Amino acid sequence: MSLTAAFVGLGAMGYRMAAHLPKSFDQVLVWNRTFSKAQQHAEQYGTQAVSIEQATQADIIFSCLPTSADVESIIRQYPPKAGAIWIDCTSGEPESAKRMVEFLKQYQADYLDAPVSGQTIGAEKGTLTVMVGGDTAVFERAQTAIEPFAGLIKHVGEPGAGFAVKAVNNMLLAVHLWATTEGFTALKANGVDLQSALECINTSSGKSGVTENVFPQRVLNRHFPLTFALPLLAKDTGIALKLAQSVKLPTPLLSLTQNLIQTASLTAAPDSDFSAAVKLYESWTKITLE
Amino acid sequence: MSLTAAFVGLGAMGYRMAAHLPKSFDQVLVWNRTFSKAQQHAEQYGTQAVSIEQATQADIIFSCLPTSADVESIIRQYPPKAGAIWIDCTSGEPESAKRMVEFLKQYQADYLDAPVSGQTIGAEKGTLTVMVGGDTAVFERAQTAIEPFAGLIKHVGEPGAGFAVKAVNNMLLAVHLWATTEGFTALKANGVDLQSALECINTSSGKSGVTENVFPQRVLNRHFPLTFALPLLAKDTGIALKLAQSVKLPTPLLSLTQNLIQTASLTAAPDSDFSAAVKLYESWTKITLE
Amino acid sequence: MSLTAAFVGLGAMGYRMAAHLPKSFDQVLVWNRTFSKAQQHAEQYGTQAVSIEQATQADIIFSCLPTSADVESIIRQYPPKAGAIWIDCTSGEPESAKRMVEFLKQYQADYLDAPVSGQTIGAEKGTLTVMVGGDTAVFERAQTAIEPFAGLIKHVGEPGAGFAVKAVNNMLLAVHLWATTEGFTALKANGVDLQSALECINTSSGKSGVTENVFPQRVLNRHFPLTFALPLLAKDTGIALKLAQSVKLPTPLLSLTQNLIQTASLTAAPDSDFSAAVKLYESWTKITLE
Amino acid sequence: MSLTAAFVGLGAMGYRMAAHLPKSFDQVLVWNRTFSKAQQHAEQYGTQAVSIEQATQADIIFSCLPTSADVESIIRQYPPKAGAIWIDCTSGEPESAKRMVEFLKQYQADYLDAPVSGQTIGAEKGTLTVMVGGDTAVFERAQTAIEPFAGLIKHVGEPGAGFAVKAVNNMLLAVHLWATTEGFTALKANGVDLQSALECINTSSGKSGVTENVFPQRVLNRHFPLTFALPLLAKDTGIALKLAQSVKLPTPLLSLTQNLIQTASLTAAPDSDFSAAVKLYESWTKITLE
Repeated sequence: MSLTAAFVGLGAMGYRMAAHLPKSFDQVLVWNRTFSKAQQHAEQYGTQAVSIEQATQADIIFSCLPTSADVESIIRQYPPKAGAIWIDCTSGEPESAKRMVEFLKQYQADYLDAPVSGQTIGAEKGTLTVMVGGDTAVFERAQTAIEPFAGLIKHVGEPGAGFAVKAVNNMLLAVHLWATTEGFTALKANGVDLQSALECINTSSGKSGVTENVFPQRVLNRHFPLTFALPLLAKDTGIALKLAQSVKLPTPLLSLTQNLIQTASLTAAPDSDFSAAVKLYESWTKITLE
Repeated sequence: MSLTAAFVGLGAMGYRMAAHLPKSFDQVLVWNRTFSKAQQHAEQYGTQAVSIEQATQADIIFSCLPTSADVESIIRQYPPKAGAIWIDCTSGEPESAKRMVEFLKQYQADYLDAPVSGQTIGAEKGTLTVMVGGDTAVFERAQTAIEPFAGLIKHVGEPGAGFAVKAVNNMLLAVHLWATTEGFTALKANGVDLQSALECINTSSGKSGVTENVFPQRVLNRHFPLTFALPLLAKDTGIALKLAQSVKLPTPLLSLTQNLIQTASLTAAPDSDFSAAVKLYESWTKITLE
Repeated sequence: MSLTAAFVGLGAMGYRMAAHLPKSFDQVLVWNRTFSKAQQHAEQYGTQAVSIEQATQADIIFSCLPTSADVESIIRQYPPKAGAIWIDCTSGEPESAKRMVEFLKQYQADYLDAPVSGQTIGAEKGTLTVMVGGDTAVFERAQTAIEPFAGLIKHVGEPGAGFAVKAVNNMLLAVHLWATTEGFTALKANGVDLQSALECINTSSGKSGVTENVFPQRVLNRHFPLTFALPLLAKDTGIALKLAQSVKLPTPLLSLTQNLIQTASLTAAPDSDFSAAVKLYESWTKITLE
Repeated sequence: MSLTAAFVGLGAMGYRMAAHLPKSFDQVLVWNRTFSKAQQHAEQYGTQAVSIEQATQADIIFSCLPTSADVESIIRQYPPKAGAIWIDCTSGEPESAKRMVEFLKQYQADYLDAPVSGQTIGAEKGTLTVMVGGDTAVFERAQTAIEPFAGLIKHVGEPGAGFAVKAVNNMLLAVHLWATTEGFTALKANGVDLQSALECINTSSGKSGVTENVFPQRVLNRHFPLTFALPLLAKDTGIALKLAQSVKLPTPLLSLTQNLIQTASLTAAPDSDFSAAVKLYESWTKITLE
């Protein structure tokens, strides 16, 4: 491809995602608020560290920032050139996607919401799941640009649909995490061996990504490695809730989960991984999951 | 093995589980309340349909009945002979397991709680997960007897521990089912294609047995095949809750789930599969998950 | 007072509130979407039925409409004259109050959010509680205008504070209603006489406006008279929830209540009184509270 | 009356209740685990401090102990004489009342569950509400014995009905307390004056015993005087929940409340008043209700 790509936001995910782009693009520009990180990326992967003005003039601009507000503020200040496609991999808000699609029309530029799932390990291996919302024709033009870091690319609907699916995915992650925490504490308090219980459940109907991955790799071994911050999970559960509230749906279970995760986020140590939400519950029960 | 085995309770699970026993036992006795089902089993699998008095005199007695109360009532009326092992595959109550171990001591007989997971398909293939609570020595004597229908056999702790793990497994199933229902309804109400959303989530952190199996095979295709009745799921979530309450643990998320499943059970059509719990939510929102 | 007052919105509350104004104002204008109701009011109470253009040119304009959106739309289309005070008795949204205060500055007019509590009986007797948000000087100028229909007038804070207190009041009403419903159903199912239970609780620590008024006057006698519609209670609980979410507070109990009331509203017969929320719960338990 | 009365358990409530008995009984025996308290009572009110063997031989025995287990253990060890009535003012368990009625039949003695509400102030003034479960004839024989400390005596149903009403009353207290805490925190975080809000709500539909008494007298003034311990409220909400679960009722709101109060109890300082449950919520939000 003779197109220029840019990657805006080199966090834990973005840094690894941008590393795959030189496979498919001759020129890959990278930008990060802390600029030294962009320079480090350039050295490590042969990309170019540039200013935000330059980055946003690429043919394809990827962004992966903490919130939709961060993305909107950059897009409004540095709108892309005509014909460009902005592919926003942030875990963002459906409403923001709709606004950005409208906003970019005056610049003859396009926008796709394309959040990713698969954690840092998936970003590193280039096997992320990318859930894309937006116009079908734009999606088709953008698809090959996304491939370098994707294991699965799925067009899930109109603008905002990608963000919606991601928010619900993360809400389910939160539900599973908290429910498994309550359930496993009850087992431990009743003298059951948790490793054996995990093994049983992982071949049974109660299994989930939490019992298969989060509990063995983060919780029961007490590692809680910071790869996805707890306040960001709280933000995502809030987005999922807003999605339901916007259509006046009652969601008793999701609401309770959001409240619990929000409480965990408010009371957690700074720089807590999402999995450290279990520590709030442990502080109530004085039982440690290990 | 020259031992005699008996299987008490030929429901959807038991019928298929008992079918594997002739592989390992010379003589397999079967009993069912509706006796014709035992006779049918005998014809189909070469087992012997017998009276409950005869069945309970086997060397190894398996039971798989709706509730612990059903099992206790048979054991008290027809206690096994000395040296026998009663392997109770019911999704039962931990307290009942403790009582039965004590009760059988006077008959020099042993009891293991050994509930299974894997649905009718796993029972048919003989690949069930069996979570066993009880004395280690008894477990070791019983292990080969369980193997014919098991994919995984796991000793998870003292008497009642097997029932505890099964109850928590089924509680997690209930949590995942209800949460996925709320989340997917929010997606549908916002115009997202549910099959695409499912595909994304099944390669992402929000996946579970519900998104991998229950939703595609029972809910989104509107089949709701009756293999595990909704009132039994309500009973199991009640057992999990009692487990937590017995040690005074707060379990906000599990309690809410139990209340929702209990409501679904109270309002469901007779003979509803557990997956039909989603229909209660659909009656609230007037949105059908398909 | 030689000032002209106008009352916009003659619903169940407004019709009775406006009836008190001729005590203090020489001229009282009334407007209602269904104009015949304004004419009826004029005949009955000596007010003048006028067009919305005329009504909004009064010195003091009261409004009492279903939602803040209704009020905002009228204010933007028919802004009041300089020096006027718009006293909005709607159960509205705090954010809207802030917007209206700002909007009216360009017209040198003032706005107070002044929602009322006390039901139709309080409106009739002129003993309503009025919780007022807004500038202190404006509040002081407006106070005597409010007196005709008020038993208690309280300045509770900045613009929006009145709406906030009203929303929390109605949320508490909703919580008390649902909790009493669950509790009394448990009592009835256990053979307790509900009238006696009510009498005990009304002299005990568990009493509330619901046990003192709503249960005896609306629920246990099965009257459910429509004076405050269930969808409006659902709207108010939503406002209270938004208030908490705007400052990122976890509110597990209020969230669950809002979800239950929202479900009740979605499934209720049209024109249901708020007290008919208990019927949703009765449909689950098949137990009637009487 | 020439009958002898005894009072077993001189806690915060019992001490004050027993003080009224000499008005109606010639002889009043008192017993307490810490015996010095009984001696102090005797000196202060002209009662007689006696052994538990003596106390339980009175004609009318009142008990007011922390739990039903405490009462049962005394009754089984020291059953009353034939013709005696045991009036149990403990906040106890309905099932226990049924057991005690049965147990005392062999001694030709009767039992009433007669829990009280009204706090220490009501005990002091002799204006308690007494909710009585049990046989009607026994209730009628016992009524005058109860009068000295009662403002309202109400026969609410069969054995256990009194305990049931008390448990539901205290559950409602717990619901109101927690809901008011969440709501008032949202108000404070939005700049509303809490005293003014309280004044408005106390003349509005959202009022309750909590807004009228608990918040002004215990919470907003930061006194939290220990008159009713938080673990006892957690116990009572547990009794109410068991009451609902015994008849398989779903109770989403009561269950969540019980979980929150149980969490508050687990994490509270020793000797916390029930009103100090708000401190758990304050630890989450970092906002103090004052």
